[in-house]
Amino acid sequence: MLGGGQLGRMFIQEALNYDVHVHCLDPDSDAPCKHLATSFQHGSLQDYDTVLQFGLDKDVVTVEIEHVNVQALHELEGRGIKVFPQPAVLAIVQDKGLQKEFYQKNGLPTADFRLISGKEELLAKNLPFPYVLKWRKGGYDGKGVQIIKSTTDLENLIDTPFLIEQLVPFTKELAVIVARNETGESVVYPTVECEFSPEINLVEFLFAPAEVSQEVEKEAREIALKVIQSLNMVGILAVEFFLTKENQLLINEIAPRPHNSGHHTIECCYTSQFEQHLRSIVNSPLGSTKLITPGVMINLLGEPGFEGIAKYENLENVIAKEGVSVHLYGKQTTKPFRKMGHVTIYGPDLEVLKSTGRSVAKELKIKA
Amino acid sequence: MLGGGQLGRMFIQEALNYDVHVHCLDPDSDAPCKHLATSFQHGSLQDYDTVLQFGLDKDVVTVEIEHVNVQALHELEGRGIKVFPQPAVLAIVQDKGLQKEFYQKNGLPTADFRLISGKEELLAKNLPFPYVLKWRKGGYDGKGVQIIKSTTDLENLIDTPFLIEQLVPFTKELAVIVARNETGESVVYPTVECEFSPEINLVEFLFAPAEVSQEVEKEAREIALKVIQSLNMVGILAVEFFLTKENQLLINEIAPRPHNSGHHTIECCYTSQFEQHLRSIVNSPLGSTKLITPGVMINLLGEPGFEGIAKYENLENVIAKEGVSVHLYGKQTTKPFRKMGHVTIYGPDLEVLKSTGRSVAKELKIKA
Repeated sequence: MLGGGQLGRMFIQEALNYDVHVHCLDPDSDAPCKHLATSFQHGSLQDYDTVLQFGLDKDVVTVEIEHVNVQALHELEGRGIKVFPQPAVLAIVQDKGLQKEFYQKNGLPTADFRLISGKEELLAKNLPFPYVLKWRKGGYDGKGVQIIKSTTDLENLIDTPFLIEQLVPFTKELAVIVARNETGESVVYPTVECEFSPEINLVEFLFAPAEVSQEVEKEAREIALKVIQSLNMVGILAVEFFLTKENQLLINEIAPRPHNSGHHTIECCYTSQFEQHLRSIVNSPLGSTKLITPGVMINLLGEPGFEGIAKYENLENVIAKEGVSVHLYGKQTTKPFRKMGHVTIYGPDLEVLKSTGRSVAKELKIKA
Repeated sequence: MLGGGQLGRMFIQEALNYDVHVHCLDPDSDAPCKHLATSFQHGSLQDYDTVLQFGLDKDVVTVEIEHVNVQALHELEGRGIKVFPQPAVLAIVQDKGLQKEFYQKNGLPTADFRLISGKEELLAKNLPFPYVLKWRKGGYDGKGVQIIKSTTDLENLIDTPFLIEQLVPFTKELAVIVARNETGESVVYPTVECEFSPEINLVEFLFAPAEVSQEVEKEAREIALKVIQSLNMVGILAVEFFLTKENQLLINEIAPRPHNSGHHTIECCYTSQFEQHLRSIVNSPLGSTKLITPGVMINLLGEPGFEGIAKYENLENVIAKEGVSVHLYGKQTTKPFRKMGHVTIYGPDLEVLKSTGRSVAKELKIKA
């Protein structure tokens, strides 16, 4: 596995049940998978030789992050090593411009866009405000995404190829997770609803199932399946949507790996996204995606203003509640908005879960 | 943790969610926790110095097996290190004679018994057949337990202190798991029913919840709570019962650690026995023991007649079924009746689960 962060960690926790040996490569010598992986290698995910050498003696190479050296993965694939998701898929996903062109070419709904070569072209074009400006490459967790409302917002821009998107007024953000194995079997999880924190552009709450009409639910699942099939991809894929006021679904982004919008599947579904990813990349039969119980997921982010050894405030109060499952990622130090863990709250009544969720989010703070 | 087998492995899988670092000591240099533990030490659990040295720099010492050096644990406890379950509890549990005397002294129901110093006394006594003969110490997974029906069964006995028990004709074998923290908070799980394989005296099927009357359910839970409270024990404890034809509950044995009869709690309860054990020994609030869904658990034992690198027959068919969760323990080699893993089958209808369970047990074979 390229990457040894929290996604890799939760993947290993489940891979253990199948006695699958997971080896990790990560640029952080103290990454969350360090003690857990069968072997842990400290090294760059972007360096061609490091990635190539890491993959050469493995049966299957997979990722928990998109930002990896795709050329090395192409080379591994050429040498007969299974690489899932395939390097061709990663190449598309790494570049938001290619992603949008892929949607367009395959008749997949997405907001209107244009591609801009860099700062100079952008300033010359004088595009009408407002619009969304994204770096084509290298953005992550809210970095590299900006709403441009006036010329003031255009100051201090870095010079990189941009994707310009129409600003979509949406009522909800939804996500659907799909998986596909080498045989071509595909499965799709029930749609979830994400509530973003407006300040930091990170998911704050996730609600499963999404409260949407049956038509929207059906359409979201169909689009997600069409995405993974059009990509001819093997592995697990998260498809993030905007739902417009007119009940139209527009694809925002995709991620070809276990994803934050699927963390609730650990407790709430027969097969978690991590186990499903494993099943898909080793070409096993895929597991049931049925929701056993509704759930609410909260990201635990480092409290702004604190940096250092993490301390979890009110953790004991929180775990005393029924149906509250805490997942800490094993990161020793916190910093503002760092993803330190998540909490899943599950039980029969989504409204009760939402209210528990809001109180947990208020109570549980990560300081230093 | 003293021991690094499958119980330790499942414990670590859950301890990871709390970022608790687990260090293991095990006599098998290739034990299931080897790659998973924060550190893994190869060494004897019975050796005073090894156990003492292992425990000296730890915050809490716990066990996944009873057969450990209790003297060293007493010494650690004396030096202010938290040892849960307490050495005094382990001393009782290690000796089936002391266990029975403990039940008697505390008014806890159990089959009639007598203690015999060794082979000579046993042969001299000429006890009426049939009876159950148990080694007071050192028995495990069916070893050291024998039904004596005639003088022929008394040949080839080893010379060790024995416990003689009245043979109890029972209708069911039940088990209840309880946990208690340092503050004294206690919780109890719903009663489960165990079906033993007659040949090998190991649990073959477990059904949760047990199909017993409300009175039996209530009484079993009360007795289990009384056991842990009488022991003044901190940690998790399994209490195994016989249910007689007259609906009387008799304690068979206890185990002060995560137990085979609680494996279904991973999928079927809000708090698994492994997480509950962790909560209890670090004096956190205990978690809900509620059953979310009925379940059936099957032990995966090495097929008789096969020894060597394990091969799992029909594993793919089995995991294709909805609500079937496989846990392999990471043991490379199989031998007859070796515990290689378990399968939990869960869903709304226990009768359906039982029938799926029986077909999974027939299908999934571990050969070499």
